[in-house]
Amino acid sequence: MNIIQLSQDELQAKHHELQAQYDKIRAAKLNLDLTRGKPAAAQLDLANELDGILEGFYLLQDGTDVRNYGNILGIPEARELGAALFGVDSSNVLVGGNSSLTLMYHYVVSMMQRWESHTVKFLCPAPGYDRHFTICEQLGIEMINVALNDDGPDMDEIFSLVENDDTIKGIWCVPMYSNPTGHTYSDQTVKRFAQLGKVAGPDFRIMWDNAYTVHHLSDTPDQLANIMSAAVEEQTADSIVLLASTSKVTFAGAGISFLGASNANLAEFEGYLSAQTIGFDKVNQLRHVRFLKDMDGIAAHMAKHKDIIKPKFTLVEEKLESSLGSKGIATWTKPHGGYFVSLDMSLGLADTVVKLSGDAGVKLTPAGATFPYRNDPNNNNIRIAPTYPPMDELAQAMDVFVLCLELACVTHLLNR
Amino acid sequence: MNIIQLSQDELQAKHHELQAQYDKIRAAKLNLDLTRGKPAAAQLDLANELDGILEGFYLLQDGTDVRNYGNILGIPEARELGAALFGVDSSNVLVGGNSSLTLMYHYVVSMMQRWESHTVKFLCPAPGYDRHFTICEQLGIEMINVALNDDGPDMDEIFSLVENDDTIKGIWCVPMYSNPTGHTYSDQTVKRFAQLGKVAGPDFRIMWDNAYTVHHLSDTPDQLANIMSAAVEEQTADSIVLLASTSKVTFAGAGISFLGASNANLAEFEGYLSAQTIGFDKVNQLRHVRFLKDMDGIAAHMAKHKDIIKPKFTLVEEKLESSLGSKGIATWTKPHGGYFVSLDMSLGLADTVVKLSGDAGVKLTPAGATFPYRNDPNNNNIRIAPTYPPMDELAQAMDVFVLCLELACVTHLLNR
Repeated sequence: MNIIQLSQDELQAKHHELQAQYDKIRAAKLNLDLTRGKPAAAQLDLANELDGILEGFYLLQDGTDVRNYGNILGIPEARELGAALFGVDSSNVLVGGNSSLTLMYHYVVSMMQRWESHTVKFLCPAPGYDRHFTICEQLGIEMINVALNDDGPDMDEIFSLVENDDTIKGIWCVPMYSNPTGHTYSDQTVKRFAQLGKVAGPDFRIMWDNAYTVHHLSDTPDQLANIMSAAVEEQTADSIVLLASTSKVTFAGAGISFLGASNANLAEFEGYLSAQTIGFDKVNQLRHVRFLKDMDGIAAHMAKHKDIIKPKFTLVEEKLESSLGSKGIATWTKPHGGYFVSLDMSLGLADTVVKLSGDAGVKLTPAGATFPYRNDPNNNNIRIAPTYPPMDELAQAMDVFVLCLELACVTHLLNR
Repeated sequence: MNIIQLSQDELQAKHHELQAQYDKIRAAKLNLDLTRGKPAAAQLDLANELDGILEGFYLLQDGTDVRNYGNILGIPEARELGAALFGVDSSNVLVGGNSSLTLMYHYVVSMMQRWESHTVKFLCPAPGYDRHFTICEQLGIEMINVALNDDGPDMDEIFSLVENDDTIKGIWCVPMYSNPTGHTYSDQTVKRFAQLGKVAGPDFRIMWDNAYTVHHLSDTPDQLANIMSAAVEEQTADSIVLLASTSKVTFAGAGISFLGASNANLAEFEGYLSAQTIGFDKVNQLRHVRFLKDMDGIAAHMAKHKDIIKPKFTLVEEKLESSLGSKGIATWTKPHGGYFVSLDMSLGLADTVVKLSGDAGVKLTPAGATFPYRNDPNNNNIRIAPTYPPMDELAQAMDVFVLCLELACVTHLLNR
């Protein structure tokens, strides 16, 4: 039953029915949350042995005492792990503290002196990760929306923008299982990103935030081409900044982070960082190396995550399909990995749905949050985060959500 | 035997004797180091049980899961610990990651927007902590030396400078067991610092880096007055920023850090930080709370540090006294706590001594390092860090050092 095609009478009846359901739910005063891209407790439990894993041994093979000061680039063993994750040499890797967001923030700040022009702009494929956009806002970097397709950002648009405006100094990318759409950039998209540095100038940076690189939900996971290899071939390695962390591998708030860059860029960044720290937490780096070991260890660990969260994504998909599948009012992504489902409304009522849901006790990510300046030009996009709530709460929250979505649409069509 | 008063013949004989000793030592190709204000391995061992102390329990009393995202101000238990350390309310405390240097760096950056004038200056009591000065250098903040006396900086000079130059926006202080002199600010000095905010304007900040607040070497430790209490009385609380860490309590590279500030300042700083992190490592904060417990726990732990490092300070003092005590060429501090001994030469030959020592295989902190721009106007000051080397190496290094110092002076007097 496509709602868009209902007659006025049918809409009236439908509205009556939905409003009654909504009023009943609202009276129940629920307190549910679909906003948080956070691991559930059961996922965190998978890494509980991190604390205590060192068993009193704090020395590295090279004699370094991880308890003491120093080693701003990280311990060799952790740099190796990051190198395997990125597909680069360990000399190109810095291992940071518990937040890759901190590394990206500082990388951008470290570039600000080189970006001498008063206006600095970043391209922002959208919908995207709100905290990327917040970094730009705090630093006064102007953001330009770029369309994000299933195979990645619109590369023609990007080349055209960059070629015609030399104040554009960077772009934010979540190339694999993108936040929030779950799409992975195609080989062709990666190749064109590797070529971008040739036209964008030496001070342009592609912030390649590979936050979900090992976060598969499918037995046939997406494959992302190695951008650094491609960039080395194109002689544009200086334009690439790789980022990742174990936040959604081990502990969300107590993992380790990685930054990958050319040797020249890494040396410059190290110089910048050295005024603010003597080194990141090497004890925690060693814990992570002992726990995760290598890429095989990471893959085995991530399979356990998948066992926990895959059913939640399946539940979300089932709820959406059964309630909205034939109604013509929304489409949504079916990600093979990552942390989110991205839903687009055909009638552009995202803010109304978020408000209705909130009033009924189901918190959703604010409408527009996935766009620069919190401004979704079509008021279409809603991000759903299935991982954190238990299954029963997730089911209940999804029921409320789809009801609110339909109610918003019917109300809108009725008052057209 | 005061060297300054020797005759030319006596100097000649002395020089001959010292030079022969020096040549012999140089031939031995030593490799010793007196530069590092780092805990020795035995000190770090005292906190080895940190890893594993949680025994699988990651939940706080209020239900917070320390493994997950959030709580940018830190966990309540750790904020309480910081509050006890600072003598303030826990609502005035932020608990950070493994580096208080990072917190001070960011606090200063967070103020840069408020400091609108193109020129920003900081007062730098000197000799002082080189990393404070590096922060100013990287951020383009002009540094002004202020004399540091036994009871703290020259407060008359500070008031006079601040009253006559409104581009002076801050001052670096290590108020207890100062790096490198080991002096503690007197009650009167603290009182005048509390009053400084009244003449310095609302955007002036006293960076009160209390790095050695529990690091006593004496059974009759120094006492530092509570600056925040005094500032609250004077209505200048906004001018005070308190800093401390457990870097020289637990693990130098994997401790936790604290920042104390007025509620208004803390809220503003939290806003600034929120663009770069979702929160610091709460798991490590909980480890520290479980391990250190409270101020009594910290005091008991620091007594163990004292047992390890006090003999090293005693050795340094004995070597200096026995070799240089009566010679009129150097004076040095006899700290009741902290990490350093500060030596001043009467003839201004610090760079020569550092060079001679280095050539003989004993690394010293570069001459001038304890002054802004690495420029010791009198070329007098040498910082000695006794904690890191084992006792036998420390003894050997001190023998070389005092020899080099005397040789430099005799050579200078001979060629006068």
